[in-house]
Amino acid sequence: MLTFFNEQHAQHAGHTQRVESVLSELGRRGLGRIVTPHGVPLMALERTHAPRYLHFLRTAWAEWSAAAPGNASLPAIATQWPVRTFRTDIEPEQFAARLGLYSMDSATPITAGTWTAAKTGADCAVNAAHALRVGERATFALTQPPGHLAGADFCGGGCYLNNAALAAQHLLDDGLSRVAILDLDYHHGNGAQGIFYQRSDVLCVSIHADPRHASPWFSGHADETGGGAGVGCNINLPLAPGAGSADWFAALETACLRLNMFRPEALVVALGGNVFAGEAHGGFGLQAADFLRAGERLAWLGFPTAFVLEGGSPLRELGTNIVNVLEGFDCAVD
Amino acid sequence: MLTFFNEQHAQHAGHTQRVESVLSELGRRGLGRIVTPHGVPLMALERTHAPRYLHFLRTAWAEWSAAAPGNASLPAIATQWPVRTFRTDIEPEQFAARLGLYSMDSATPITAGTWTAAKTGADCAVNAAHALRVGERATFALTQPPGHLAGADFCGGGCYLNNAALAAQHLLDDGLSRVAILDLDYHHGNGAQGIFYQRSDVLCVSIHADPRHASPWFSGHADETGGGAGVGCNINLPLAPGAGSADWFAALETACLRLNMFRPEALVVALGGNVFAGEAHGGFGLQAADFLRAGERLAWLGFPTAFVLEGGSPLRELGTNIVNVLEGFDCAVD
Repeated sequence: MLTFFNEQHAQHAGHTQRVESVLSELGRRGLGRIVTPHGVPLMALERTHAPRYLHFLRTAWAEWSAAAPGNASLPAIATQWPVRTFRTDIEPEQFAARLGLYSMDSATPITAGTWTAAKTGADCAVNAAHALRVGERATFALTQPPGHLAGADFCGGGCYLNNAALAAQHLLDDGLSRVAILDLDYHHGNGAQGIFYQRSDVLCVSIHADPRHASPWFSGHADETGGGAGVGCNINLPLAPGAGSADWFAALETACLRLNMFRPEALVVALGGNVFAGEAHGGFGLQAADFLRAGERLAWLGFPTAFVLEGGSPLRELGTNIVNVLEGFDCAVD
Repeated sequence: MLTFFNEQHAQHAGHTQRVESVLSELGRRGLGRIVTPHGVPLMALERTHAPRYLHFLRTAWAEWSAAAPGNASLPAIATQWPVRTFRTDIEPEQFAARLGLYSMDSATPITAGTWTAAKTGADCAVNAAHALRVGERATFALTQPPGHLAGADFCGGGCYLNNAALAAQHLLDDGLSRVAILDLDYHHGNGAQGIFYQRSDVLCVSIHADPRHASPWFSGHADETGGGAGVGCNINLPLAPGAGSADWFAALETACLRLNMFRPEALVVALGGNVFAGEAHGGFGLQAADFLRAGERLAWLGFPTAFVLEGGSPLRELGTNIVNVLEGFDCAVD
């Protein structure tokens, strides 16, 4: 499987062990070529994200670090935000207020290398999508920070640019008519849902922990099925607390059924390691072999598929589990 | 001027010096009786605030402090919140998520005595409003925490219950047809605006720093003039950075003109000391004598008037300035 590796990932001081763990396991198994991506123009990102948000994100660290002595050694963190009754059409002048405008939590700091890491990650995702268009059966964007919780115009949950959404949009812009995103991270993929909610050209399917009990809390319920032209094109399969691997695989079958009904011309998989039984919260009880099975099942769908790395605790097993999905996919294809 | 004093204000570890400074100045000048309020039923608060928000606020500390060892020595602070694309109709089970659901910032901690202090403050405001109905010409709710930034279902800016809105709603519920709120705090009174935005029975007028440059950032622009039945019943008079007392008094004249046109049967004034020239950010350059003049001007309007204490830095002059407004009002009436 052709892997696009984000060499800049550690510029953002987040979960850098995720990438390293997967990279070393990929190398150990010799699972296809590992390449660096071409840089994509900002315009490609503006197809998915609001231009003013991209501008903010790209210039945020320079502005923050210059604003006051000492800022350069502190991450910028949101403290106030526009909830109901507030408006979002006018950008406040103050940096702190704009950071709040463009955030969904206070757990997504902007640091010196955030933009470089996130932009190179977006490059990986778009390159992975594009490679499907020139003949690859499956590709992998090996990058951090993750992306699936980032909205059209906000960061959150440690995500800044929505890599999976960018990959899907690129496939459409490059000529496809129907693309699907399958989010297998433990947390609901609110970003892609929000971005494509009113559209019928992208099917978003997400299997995740019930938002009554897990972040992102305010999104991911089963009755969120799309709006306007997109009615029926958003499918949430929340799992109750204590759900195990049997429940997860049952949801995966439902997801596969819906994917087959939609008949996408390509699939983007947002892949998290945090469904693993070894996660502190228990994930969904998946063992290493389950990740292999999941990869095989996805291959049977028969769609050109781009995988994007999302979340997962930096456990010893993360690399094994993620690469199991990829190897399971590859073996079923061969 | 009859003053309702919140003896419980210090239960919330916030700006307790505000009340003490004003109380001692009131006592020094002998400006009318100072009494404690009767407790009002929760149902009175539900006329203005969402019942589920009140329930959360009332039980939050007990839930938080029992949730984990060590919590009892930490204030509860919001970390994640439902911005655009998120929904608010389903309450998550987890406390942290509900705190985010009901907050607009991370600067409004819930502590052991927050509910007691805020509820007794609401009692003061409703009592101050009710006293107008039984013959008082003017009353004063001497309370903290402040209230004018709290929305129907969220806390923020150190505010939990919207005392001014509760006072206005009580006047309507007690038989009046038209009530006005005039917010003179340095920060826009987003709470009352949001609560009454679609209604024609409450005129909300606010003079404040331009939200491009000051909190609450996402509310308070001049083009927010009300919606639905309330079109024309919301008036924002934002002042640019560097505006001085002449600008402020010009805005006050505009406010008085609009108040006269609306012909309210009673007026609620949300009173902040933070327009004072001695504030760290310069306020609007008002000197002590300006506060006297402002009080006189409000008296000339001729409406039964309830004052509610909002913000202001705990400066030595705060008590003098706030009581100057009250004394200016009283002298003009006599």
